[in-house]
Amino acid sequence: MPSSTDAATTVAELRQLVADFVAERDWSQFHSPKNVSMALAIEAAELMEHFQWLTTEASRRIADDPAKLAEVADEIADVVGYSMALANELGIDISSAIRAKMIKNAHKYPADQFRGRYGDV
Amino acid sequence: MPSSTDAATTVAELRQLVADFVAERDWSQFHSPKNVSMALAIEAAELMEHFQWLTTEASRRIADDPAKLAEVADEIADVVGYSMALANELGIDISSAIRAKMIKNAHKYPADQFRGRYGDV
Amino acid sequence: MPSSTDAATTVAELRQLVADFVAERDWSQFHSPKNVSMALAIEAAELMEHFQWLTTEASRRIADDPAKLAEVADEIADVVGYSMALANELGIDISSAIRAKMIKNAHKYPADQFRGRYGDV
Amino acid sequence: MPSSTDAATTVAELRQLVADFVAERDWSQFHSPKNVSMALAIEAAELMEHFQWLTTEASRRIADDPAKLAEVADEIADVVGYSMALANELGIDISSAIRAKMIKNAHKYPADQFRGRYGDV
Repeated sequence: MPSSTDAATTVAELRQLVADFVAERDWSQFHSPKNVSMALAIEAAELMEHFQWLTTEASRRIADDPAKLAEVADEIADVVGYSMALANELGIDISSAIRAKMIKNAHKYPADQFRGRYGDV
Repeated sequence: MPSSTDAATTVAELRQLVADFVAERDWSQFHSPKNVSMALAIEAAELMEHFQWLTTEASRRIADDPAKLAEVADEIADVVGYSMALANELGIDISSAIRAKMIKNAHKYPADQFRGRYGDV
Repeated sequence: MPSSTDAATTVAELRQLVADFVAERDWSQFHSPKNVSMALAIEAAELMEHFQWLTTEASRRIADDPAKLAEVADEIADVVGYSMALANELGIDISSAIRAKMIKNAHKYPADQFRGRYGDV
Repeated sequence: MPSSTDAATTVAELRQLVADFVAERDWSQFHSPKNVSMALAIEAAELMEHFQWLTTEASRRIADDPAKLAEVADEIADVVGYSMALANELGIDISSAIRAKMIKNAHKYPADQFRGRYGDV
């Protein structure tokens, strides 16, 4: 269904989905930035749990296991969903934040100096 | 600048930004799902750090502090950026994942039963 | 039972309990520092989960709820247990590490300057 | 110095070190279980950061690098230190909690069935 893909979906549409879900349950009262940041970190840990005992190479093979991949997709949805819930509470534009951060990162890690190596290894 | 807002940006455009950044540095070799899930959890912790010693109420007032807000926006960018890097490595469509998860959540937390209360409180 | 209390138990005794558990299952092969650090972070998130939607004040009242307190004690056991598993793999003396860190912290946060306030608030 | 090793240090002695540090700064007011659980998760993430881009095998070689090992020991001290701060606030006996949890774990993962393999892999 083309209308549900990343190529055809704006960030604002996904944010609205999350905002509606929260509003319908009157959950904004629980969604202080402190609480949502905790929820986000907890979901990030649940995502990590899928890779915890695997070697780095074995973790790549998740891509070939549809059942595992669906579980991982679920956790990514939670992480991005809570990121949007937090942005909603604070009035942050995610696209601008990512664009600004990528520019900072490009200055910090110039492609010609960091090709094939991480700064901190 | 309208072209940089969430209303005018598709998820795919942001994913491409992240993919290009990784490709230009040949960093995909480090981006095993295991490693990226760790990076994501670390960024989620850095986001939490901004709210760590605040009361839940005080954490809402970050919205009125432009300097703090910019720092938080930076961390959200990192979290969503790594979520996209992970989705890129695994070939996961984020919009579909979020839509599917919101439907699951709506079944788990029917609005009429959970209005104003969390399931686990 | 006095023999099971913190006043009568050395750190080494607890480390030995953890080491025996790992050895009996031949799990040291999975206990690379990278993997154990992930396990530890995941348990820390599970601990946080108990306080996620509470206000800071309400979180103190867990102390009066024996059932909740037992769940929290379980999670603390996991966190400290994995910290010991990591120290076992790397040959780190925890008591020395804590004593050294407390001296550093005392220099960083002199009691007379930081009484009643955090450095970063 | 024998008196500073894990073999000669009770858990209660380390807890007292942490309790004194907190009391001298009147920081108990900030140490709600919610806040301390966040601090603990943040330190766990900082610990993970040392292993983030390494393969599982490379992470074992940290044991041979004294400078890196000292940094990791510092982070373990923070994690265990906050675990103790939380136990102090809630009146939890860590040794009893670990002994009880190890018994539960032994039932969940019988040595003869789980030798050389994890339950969830």
